[in-house]
Amino acid sequence: MTVPATHLLSFPDWMGSVQTRVEAALARSLPPGEAIPARLHQAMRYASLAGGKRVRPLLVFAAGELTEASTARLEVAASAVELIHSYSLVHDDLPCMDDDVLRRGRPTCHVEYDEATALLVGDSLQSLAFELLARDDFGDGRRQLEMIRVLARASGSCGMAGGQAIDLAAVGQQLNQPELELMHALKTGALMRAAVLLGGLCGKALDDAERESLDRFAKRAGLLFQVVDDILDCTASTATLGKTAGKDAAATKPTYVSVMGLERAREFAADLREQAVGALAVFGGGCRRLVELTDFITWRKF
Amino acid sequence: MTVPATHLLSFPDWMGSVQTRVEAALARSLPPGEAIPARLHQAMRYASLAGGKRVRPLLVFAAGELTEASTARLEVAASAVELIHSYSLVHDDLPCMDDDVLRRGRPTCHVEYDEATALLVGDSLQSLAFELLARDDFGDGRRQLEMIRVLARASGSCGMAGGQAIDLAAVGQQLNQPELELMHALKTGALMRAAVLLGGLCGKALDDAERESLDRFAKRAGLLFQVVDDILDCTASTATLGKTAGKDAAATKPTYVSVMGLERAREFAADLREQAVGALAVFGGGCRRLVELTDFITWRKF
Repeated sequence: MTVPATHLLSFPDWMGSVQTRVEAALARSLPPGEAIPARLHQAMRYASLAGGKRVRPLLVFAAGELTEASTARLEVAASAVELIHSYSLVHDDLPCMDDDVLRRGRPTCHVEYDEATALLVGDSLQSLAFELLARDDFGDGRRQLEMIRVLARASGSCGMAGGQAIDLAAVGQQLNQPELELMHALKTGALMRAAVLLGGLCGKALDDAERESLDRFAKRAGLLFQVVDDILDCTASTATLGKTAGKDAAATKPTYVSVMGLERAREFAADLREQAVGALAVFGGGCRRLVELTDFITWRKF
Repeated sequence: MTVPATHLLSFPDWMGSVQTRVEAALARSLPPGEAIPARLHQAMRYASLAGGKRVRPLLVFAAGELTEASTARLEVAASAVELIHSYSLVHDDLPCMDDDVLRRGRPTCHVEYDEATALLVGDSLQSLAFELLARDDFGDGRRQLEMIRVLARASGSCGMAGGQAIDLAAVGQQLNQPELELMHALKTGALMRAAVLLGGLCGKALDDAERESLDRFAKRAGLLFQVVDDILDCTASTATLGKTAGKDAAATKPTYVSVMGLERAREFAADLREQAVGALAVFGGGCRRLVELTDFITWRKF
């Protein structure tokens, strides 16, 4: 049996190779910057090819390891999830939403271009995500349709967009922890979960117990990411984050830190890490990258 | 052979029956207004269940007649196209785009709710459109994937959203007729064409000549709709249209009337009607509703 070369990589090297691969796949999938309407296409590339941690693509690839998925399929799934994530950042940064000027260390899309263009960038990135998942060279129609359903539900009003609506309504409110968890389960958790499920759907079929375990992992990992994000928002600098630090606290948005305090939020993150990794026990040694990625999410500094 | 009852209906009765059917299908497909986040879901229903002519669903059903498509499939396809259309209206009406306050005789979504909610309504309606087309009870995976590709391309930066970007850049510019046709081919034409193609994809397979003819019809019908829209914008009243009349002229947007003059625009519409109906010759008597609908689009007063 040939061991794929990526199995030999250290986690940082594996992460770098996935990030490079996804950046290239996105660059190929996006219309060229000179295609009409050129300004819109340039803005789409500006908003999508800015680097970033690519956590969702990493989740897709790490989950793909479980099902021995092909790199070609994982690239498509990872690109689709990342396009949805990029669209949500562009729209969330707009003046009528979070009104932010800095993202990944650069001016936000509506600052660099204009509001109308940023609106159309987000709309177009969403369409492109679904176009990618419906490609005719993917090779498994039923699986593709399931992936499209998973991504569409995770993106819409009962997923990410719904979470953003709850978030907007919560400004200046005091939420309790269950309310905060519902908001984050939708706002960031739904798409993180979709990334894991899509990665799992790219390869050989999982049995019901495996699917259930992977879903349990996905939910805990998504929540973990948000708790760590809230901790970093109040402990890291703007320069380190590449986005405006302390913004959630300044906007009197409820965060895990504001609800639990910093120390308990850190303990909660450690608990979630245990639960997430514990859910992967059913996969034995086949889940190395998911475990490494969970640790990266827990201990990251930006 | 049993003749389906809808074949016996007059055109106005057929149109009414399709409109009623699509309204009910949309009402079933949209999340209930009391589901969390309730305000977002109420706003999605406000933006999507306001009636309107439902021209795109009518095109889906009329094209479905050619392929003897089932009503259940046509309802799904028509709902998906109409959700994309509804999302585009909500986003186009926003202050950073066309900044309009009246739509289908009622306050626009951001006036009735707020800008952030309207942004999320559009985003969520788009996700829902693709979720519907990926339903697992549709019964033909390859066909569904083709429909998703057709709708995604028609919606994105090389379709409707791209046309809107060109439109925004054209305000105050003098376009010539080919430039105007490119803009409209994307802005309104792409989704009208997708409606026809999706209707055709709901039933038995067409041969290459039939597909090519249907596509030729779809492109001419989409352009026809826009030319008539421009004529109505300068000849009908706000009360009749249910949206602000004379707005394009006031915004110094190029229209077919501003480029060609009213009389030549009317002749152009009549020519397009001939070309559209001519493209259907290959279908013999099986295209009655498409011809009737083309005449309705040509002679409508609102």
